[in-house]
Amino acid sequence: MVQYSTELDQAFAAVSDPTRRGILERLGRGDASISDLAADFQMTLTGIKKHVQVLEGAGLVTTQKVGRVRTCRVGPRRLADEATWIGKYQEMLDARLNRLEAFLERTKGKPS
Amino acid sequence: MVQYSTELDQAFAAVSDPTRRGILERLGRGDASISDLAADFQMTLTGIKKHVQVLEGAGLVTTQKVGRVRTCRVGPRRLADEATWIGKYQEMLDARLNRLEAFLERTKGKPS
Repeated sequence: MVQYSTELDQAFAAVSDPTRRGILERLGRGDASISDLAADFQMTLTGIKKHVQVLEGAGLVTTQKVGRVRTCRVGPRRLADEATWIGKYQEMLDARLNRLEAFLERTKGKPS
Repeated sequence: MVQYSTELDQAFAAVSDPTRRGILERLGRGDASISDLAADFQMTLTGIKKHVQVLEGAGLVTTQKVGRVRTCRVGPRRLADEATWIGKYQEMLDARLNRLEAFLERTKGKPS
């Protein structure tokens, strides 16, 4: 398991906030401007911009400014490394629980 | 997709730190005391305790104090909801990219 990774840090931190997860889900249905998002989430433009910047920093949202409108699109990162990390964590946890179970079985079987 | 979830918030935030991911990986190899972890990660007891508290709050680590020694064990949470959320994000992203691609194909096919 890769322990140190700025990308993992940023991506996990980005999706640890319910509004940011909501923004990703909203953008999954279609591109949206900062104003659209502010209206949808009943937040100030400044508040939404901050969340979008965090998502953009993590590669989960791409923005493009045309004139005065900044449009947000989901992607390009697929959270593939994050999914892999969680999968490895689960394998490790299962292996650990199996070892503990085997140990308890052996201990139980011994005459006291 | 479930947008609001304190459990998702806490778990994603917990694994967004490289030391905390390292602690989980270390505990996957076997239980460890706070002092063991402090030695392994070359951190102060206070620093390690804070990280362990975050992991414990997210249900990723269980601790038990016997005498003066607090032993840490990985689990019980498997990050199952987090894996599901990422899976749904990936499906959504793929569907969005497919729709964009189809739109571009249609646009390209039209006479200008």
